[in-house]
Amino acid sequence: MSRKLDVRALANPSCPAPLASDRVVLAHGAGAGASARLLEACVFPHLDNPWLRERHDGAVLDLGTSRLAFTTDTFVVSPLEFPGGDIGSLAVHGTINDLAMCGARPLALSCAVVLEEGLPLETFERVMRGLAEAARRVDVPVVTGDTKVVERGKGDGIFINTSGVGLVAAGRDLRPGRVAPGDAILVSGPVGCHGAAVLSVREGLAFESEIRSDSEPLHDLVEALLEAVPTMSCLRDPSRGGVAAVLHEIARGAGAEIEFEDARVPVTDAVRSACELLGLDPLSLACEGRLVAFVAESEVGAALESLRSHPKGRAAVRIGTVRTGRPRVVVRTALGTRRLLPLPAGDPLPRIC
Amino acid sequence: MSRKLDVRALANPSCPAPLASDRVVLAHGAGAGASARLLEACVFPHLDNPWLRERHDGAVLDLGTSRLAFTTDTFVVSPLEFPGGDIGSLAVHGTINDLAMCGARPLALSCAVVLEEGLPLETFERVMRGLAEAARRVDVPVVTGDTKVVERGKGDGIFINTSGVGLVAAGRDLRPGRVAPGDAILVSGPVGCHGAAVLSVREGLAFESEIRSDSEPLHDLVEALLEAVPTMSCLRDPSRGGVAAVLHEIARGAGAEIEFEDARVPVTDAVRSACELLGLDPLSLACEGRLVAFVAESEVGAALESLRSHPKGRAAVRIGTVRTGRPRVVVRTALGTRRLLPLPAGDPLPRIC
Repeated sequence: MSRKLDVRALANPSCPAPLASDRVVLAHGAGAGASARLLEACVFPHLDNPWLRERHDGAVLDLGTSRLAFTTDTFVVSPLEFPGGDIGSLAVHGTINDLAMCGARPLALSCAVVLEEGLPLETFERVMRGLAEAARRVDVPVVTGDTKVVERGKGDGIFINTSGVGLVAAGRDLRPGRVAPGDAILVSGPVGCHGAAVLSVREGLAFESEIRSDSEPLHDLVEALLEAVPTMSCLRDPSRGGVAAVLHEIARGAGAEIEFEDARVPVTDAVRSACELLGLDPLSLACEGRLVAFVAESEVGAALESLRSHPKGRAAVRIGTVRTGRPRVVVRTALGTRRLLPLPAGDPLPRIC
Repeated sequence: MSRKLDVRALANPSCPAPLASDRVVLAHGAGAGASARLLEACVFPHLDNPWLRERHDGAVLDLGTSRLAFTTDTFVVSPLEFPGGDIGSLAVHGTINDLAMCGARPLALSCAVVLEEGLPLETFERVMRGLAEAARRVDVPVVTGDTKVVERGKGDGIFINTSGVGLVAAGRDLRPGRVAPGDAILVSGPVGCHGAAVLSVREGLAFESEIRSDSEPLHDLVEALLEAVPTMSCLRDPSRGGVAAVLHEIARGAGAEIEFEDARVPVTDAVRSACELLGLDPLSLACEGRLVAFVAESEVGAALESLRSHPKGRAAVRIGTVRTGRPRVVVRTALGTRRLLPLPAGDPLPRIC
């Protein structure tokens, strides 16, 4: 247990700047390269077990007669309220979606808040109302909770942890490790709306049309999809780090090359304009109401039909294919050329969820 | 859903001062009167279901063939390290103990951290090592997690949420509502050591002998106790708000009067001296390695014998009795007089866990 922290392990030769620090930097929370390196350096050497090794959105525990999915997420989004949602509803959707990505039917949520001294009680109550309404809409009770208060300047209004448990039906097995060369890659709708919506409020930007967060619970879409295609390899919700982070994680988890067509990834005009203005890539912007599905070639038709027949998946499309090759993500452009998609190292957008 | 927040509901006529605020104050996080009023005003009007109505340390969900306990706690203790533990081991013990108080055998933990920009990575790693070692000692894996980073001045080093799941054996039913007049009240050992240990570091106090936190996992003590006395009414770990808060909660939950003898509550000399110096009541100081048990009179002998034969319960004693009467807590002094124990309204010790 006397292992010395190797700070150099945190430095990536391709992006030496703030990541070589011996202190926590914002990029460590961005859900992409720096986050992964932080966990590899400080967490996984101590915590290691078959569940964490899956690097999935949640864990599936075998209870003998049933299988339990268990997941956790803390929400620190700033601002607390944004077009299309607030930290309360986002916390419910985020955890419901993590359970759904494990193939689980959500059973119950917990809610633990850290309040900053001085937060108006009306704000707290409004957030709790948003959280409660979101939980009611998905018909999943919040069964246990916790409230802590920290001094002014030691928090930021409100942070919310929602953990969740759910039951996984027999036979379901959705894991990055199941993704195999030949699998097709689908997305359920336009990407990056949540990230762009939060950013537009935070930066005080006014776009021609308001960008609303896509924050939405996907458990029903997933149930329909898994009924149509029970052999699905893996599902992932592209939250922090966006679709780009998901593709990198799956390439690593599956030990395979991922190739996708840039032009096929659905992006709304409003999100595209915002990204152009701000120099951001929509592929790296968070969603909280979209999923990325990995499915055998033979099931693509059934999967797309199932997604498109559901209100939350109408704009579903195929964006790429998993190929034999070393783990990396390759973009095929509209002109037919291929280039590597780098794993974003910095943080285009801290505190997005 | 247009219910207006009644700020006056937060004001208690017996302690009007800071609680009548329309903003969050530190006392709202102290686990006693103000915390309860905050939840009644801002949370429970929106979130209400049979599990939350139990006001227990966790929820027990019926899965058909098994019963699942589910609990959550965020740890914001300051300082991060103290004699006898750190925020990492405390987070494991706190959640293991909440599961144990539900009568559950702990199955798995989650770990979600909020890091403040600028935290030395070595501190983060040390805390994760403490957490991992504590989890290994109880043989419960940390199966899922999350990492967020907030800007400098928007957090305080590290906050850790640990949620937990466990299985409750058939027939076990530990709930405040099961406590009945005639039940005896036992504590498993000297109280207040955790609170006094944290306070001694925070205030830079040196006592004659160092006060070490009692932070310890109690799942094994509880298993032994429930094997000896399967009909136990309720178990509670006196964390925030200490034994005083537990007695008040149970009086309210059971709708009965609780009478206890001040002089019987075990307190070490060091904790007593610290409390005298600081004007604190050991009854209100947090523990994280003690339990309060409510048990039928006929089982007191078996319960005490079971507790005392376990290394973590050697100093177990009976401190009082549940009586027919309206919900309140009565102290019987060494002189035989009776007085009411008020529910602490303020916060003797913020950020103790």
